[in-house]
Amino acid sequence: MEFAKHTFFCPDPEVGKLSSDESHHAIKVMRLNLNDRINLLDGNGGKYLAEVTGTDKKGLEFNILNSEIIQRKGTSIHLIIAPTKSIDRFSFLIEKITELGIAEITPIYTANSERRKLNIDKIQKGLIASIKQSGNLFLPKLNEPVSITDKEFNLTGTSFVAHCKEDHDKKPLKDFQPFTGNVSILVGPEGDFTTEEINLVKQKGAQAVDLSDQILRTETAGIIACYTVQLLS
Amino acid sequence: MEFAKHTFFCPDPEVGKLSSDESHHAIKVMRLNLNDRINLLDGNGGKYLAEVTGTDKKGLEFNILNSEIIQRKGTSIHLIIAPTKSIDRFSFLIEKITELGIAEITPIYTANSERRKLNIDKIQKGLIASIKQSGNLFLPKLNEPVSITDKEFNLTGTSFVAHCKEDHDKKPLKDFQPFTGNVSILVGPEGDFTTEEINLVKQKGAQAVDLSDQILRTETAGIIACYTVQLLS
Repeated sequence: MEFAKHTFFCPDPEVGKLSSDESHHAIKVMRLNLNDRINLLDGNGGKYLAEVTGTDKKGLEFNILNSEIIQRKGTSIHLIIAPTKSIDRFSFLIEKITELGIAEITPIYTANSERRKLNIDKIQKGLIASIKQSGNLFLPKLNEPVSITDKEFNLTGTSFVAHCKEDHDKKPLKDFQPFTGNVSILVGPEGDFTTEEINLVKQKGAQAVDLSDQILRTETAGIIACYTVQLLS
Repeated sequence: MEFAKHTFFCPDPEVGKLSSDESHHAIKVMRLNLNDRINLLDGNGGKYLAEVTGTDKKGLEFNILNSEIIQRKGTSIHLIIAPTKSIDRFSFLIEKITELGIAEITPIYTANSERRKLNIDKIQKGLIASIKQSGNLFLPKLNEPVSITDKEFNLTGTSFVAHCKEDHDKKPLKDFQPFTGNVSILVGPEGDFTTEEINLVKQKGAQAVDLSDQILRTETAGIIACYTVQLLS
């Protein structure tokens, strides 16, 4: 497919129009005009080449010239992670796991969480910026934050909890290779999960794992855990 | 060993005194006093418990009460990487590979490098901050930047070049497991290595590798490459 200079996010290209945010960026910042060509990503495996057909107040309108749809392959990874105290570190994590092509992210609040507020809209914008930059065709699904003690909080597929406490059940994550199907990984906050929380998620089916001989920061553990599953799938 | 509240970096604890930077931090910022206890890391596997014996203008003096020396084990990893345009991204990389316990880092300048200046003193300070925070006992050796075309630039041990170009020689890095001994990995800048640079390092013994099906940013590729070697050692 022809490679246009600018890429925009458009979850439903069939409507032939960019969102107001993306339109503003395209028209006011990028100064796109009639007949310019653009690339579109739908975040679900679709990549489109389109031609600009309108740039008025209603937003940027386009005609699709060409499209290519890729099916997601391999293991589907769901990272369930406590937001870090520093929002920059959390943003960095979000960027990195989007680059890696992770399927789903759920922020989780725990007893030792140092951050209990998240601007989900801002994180969603970070995800979109990251797929546009990385060329990854899949937008990770960002869930609303959940409390670890919430009765509605359940684990599906193969699930793991990475923690730093003494635990005779714990094995290196890589020992569970090859990974297939749906895999969920829980990563705790700076102060780790509590023993009660670890037991709780074990009861929900999670297996306790170690990621490294080193002590890793939360965001490093999140990146490394997702990558390990992807690498050994 | 007893765990003191504050940890300082001291490459040669036998002299019984902190550096002027660390002394300033200990005395003026942390307000340490006579008889307070501190932990020291020598960055070479040594961890010490010490007692403050002096806090005057000459710096913080101490007596060592207890020590523990750990030998480095496993594969020794040397990351040779092009500094990113954004210094924040490079700092993040430095922090992450220090957490992972990488042995050595060399910044490399290439034809497509967007950054050709580095404040090595500042990066060294970042390394020291990172070992103090992560509890990693080994300070990575930070080399002066080198140009990839420099005749003095050589590769030792098993070496790999990660790049994104078409290359029929290229294999996934994980296919080379298990990793042992000294391993060097080259990672290029935002615009990748040139074909000439790839051929040049191949002549010096590097094997061409892929890290992921996704396109990764330079700093992500650096973290992921080091972690892959460590995980599969």
